[in-house]
Amino acid sequence: MTDNPIYHVDGDLVPADDATVSVDDRGFRYGDAAFETLRAYGGTILAWDAHLERLERTCEALSLEHGLSATDLRARIDETLAANDLADAYVRLSITRGVQPGKLTPDPEVDPTVVVYVTPLPRGGLEGDPVWDGPATVETVATRRVPDASIPAAAKTHNYLNGILARTELEAGSDEALLCDLEGRVTEGATSNLFFVRDGAIYTPTTDGPVLPGITRDIVLELAREAGIPVREGRYEPDAVRAADEAFLTNRTWELRPIGTLDGRAIGGGPVTDRLARLYDDRVEKLCYE
Amino acid sequence: MTDNPIYHVDGDLVPADDATVSVDDRGFRYGDAAFETLRAYGGTILAWDAHLERLERTCEALSLEHGLSATDLRARIDETLAANDLADAYVRLSITRGVQPGKLTPDPEVDPTVVVYVTPLPRGGLEGDPVWDGPATVETVATRRVPDASIPAAAKTHNYLNGILARTELEAGSDEALLCDLEGRVTEGATSNLFFVRDGAIYTPTTDGPVLPGITRDIVLELAREAGIPVREGRYEPDAVRAADEAFLTNRTWELRPIGTLDGRAIGGGPVTDRLARLYDDRVEKLCYE
Repeated sequence: MTDNPIYHVDGDLVPADDATVSVDDRGFRYGDAAFETLRAYGGTILAWDAHLERLERTCEALSLEHGLSATDLRARIDETLAANDLADAYVRLSITRGVQPGKLTPDPEVDPTVVVYVTPLPRGGLEGDPVWDGPATVETVATRRVPDASIPAAAKTHNYLNGILARTELEAGSDEALLCDLEGRVTEGATSNLFFVRDGAIYTPTTDGPVLPGITRDIVLELAREAGIPVREGRYEPDAVRAADEAFLTNRTWELRPIGTLDGRAIGGGPVTDRLARLYDDRVEKLCYE
Repeated sequence: MTDNPIYHVDGDLVPADDATVSVDDRGFRYGDAAFETLRAYGGTILAWDAHLERLERTCEALSLEHGLSATDLRARIDETLAANDLADAYVRLSITRGVQPGKLTPDPEVDPTVVVYVTPLPRGGLEGDPVWDGPATVETVATRRVPDASIPAAAKTHNYLNGILARTELEAGSDEALLCDLEGRVTEGATSNLFFVRDGAIYTPTTDGPVLPGITRDIVLELAREAGIPVREGRYEPDAVRAADEAFLTNRTWELRPIGTLDGRAIGGGPVTDRLARLYDDRVEKLCYE
C-alpha cells in the first residue's frame, strides 16, 4: 500500500491519482448516486449481506436499476483489496446513474458508474487500538436533518450537504455534529448513529424518524438484546442525552465511540458502553476471523 | 460545434468526452459544490452580475471560499464559448470544494474545481421559436421541497436528489414536477419557478419559503411591476394554481413556459403570460443585442 492507493472505477483498477469520472456523470452533476461504507477485517467484509440489502433499498428509493449482481459488486471490492494488498481497510462502494443526456429526469436505461475506494484502517478492538483518538466532542447544531418526505433518510446517497452544513457549524476541535429533526428531537450525527444509556437501558432515536438505519447500529441493538440489556427506540430531546449516564456514537469506522462531551457537558462512556464495545469486538472476531 | 463540445475543467479547455474530475473530488463524493445555469444570447451572458451574486451567496451558505475573481470566472466562460464558436448557448458553471483528505468536515483551505459546460441553445423569443415544444404538462408530487432549516433553498448546489425524486414520480410525458413544502403549500418545480394569474394579477410563491430565488423569476417580477401588473408573493395551496386563469414556469432555459395542464386540469397561458413573455424578449434584446 503506497500513498497512492488503487481504486476500482468502472471495471478497471486505476491509481487513485488517475481515478476520475466524467463531469457529465450524474453522480457529479447532481449527487445522483448510492453508496455504502464498509469495513474489511482480515480480508473479510463485515456484514456484507446487510450492506448489500441497504444498497438495494437506496437504489430502489432512487429508481436506480443498475443491473449489477451482488457477485459482481463483491468481486470489484475483493479485487481492489487484493490490488492494494490490504486485509484491514475502510471501503467505500459508490454506484451512480452514469452519464445521461442533459436532462434532470432520469432515463430508466442506466449505464452505471461503479467506484470502489479503499484506505488502510487497522483493526481496533480486541487486537488493537480504537481507530479514534479519544471520546468524541459533540455539539448539537442548528441545521435540521432533512425530513423523509423530502429525501428518505434510509437512502445513503451522494447528497451529503446536510451533514456538511452541520459539520461547518462546529467549533474547532469538535468531532461530530448532532442533528435534530424539525421538531427538535435528536436524530443522528453527520456520519454516525447516537446511543445513550440511562439506568442500565440503552436508548437510540427510532428509524421511524429521519435516521439512517446504520448497520453498526443494528449490530449493537442485536448484541444488547442478546445480552439482556433493555433497548428503547424513540424520539428524544437533546436534554435527555445531556443528562444520560453514558452516550456513544456508532458507525462502520468508529465502531462504538464514547461521547466525551455534548455541548460542553461531560457524559462519557461507562460500563454499558464498554460491555457493548467488547461484545462488538467478539462479533467481529467471530464473523471475520473464525 | 460538434457532438463533442469543449468544456473548461480546472483551467483547461478539454473535449467533453475527456472532461473528468477526480473520484475524490468533494463535488462527486458529496455533491459539495455550487453552480449556476446561465444563458448566452449573441455572445452576451444575460444578467451576469445577478448570477455572480447568487453564486457568492451559495458559496457563503456552504462556507466555500473558492478565492476566484469574477473576472477569472467570466474569462473561463468566454473562453469556453469561443472555443466552441458559440454565441447562443446554455452554460453551466460549477465550483466544487475540490479534493480534500477523506473527512466529511471541510478543510477551509480550498483548491476548488471549476467546470464550465456549454450546449448550443438557439434564441427563442422575438427572433425565433421557444426552446420548449409546447406548454408544460405539470403534476404536483408527494416529494416535499427540502426545508430551509435543512439546506437553504437559496443555495444552488449539486445536491439535486430532491428534484430528481420529484421527477421520478411523474407519469410518462409529463414535463415538470411541482413540489409543495411540508405544510402542503406550492413552492417550485424541480428546475423552475412557478407563476399564476388571477384577475389580471400575477402570483408566485414567496422566497421566504423554500424557493430558489430564480433570476428569470426576478426579471419577470421586475417587468410586471414596470408594466403596472399587480404582483403578489405569498404561500398558496395547489388548488389556487389549479383554479388560476393562466399559469407559467420560468427558468433560464425555458424563459416563460405556459403550464398546459396541472394534474390533468387545463390552465394554459393567456394575455398576461403572453405580455410578460414579450416584455422578457424585449429585455433580452435590450441587454444582449443593443
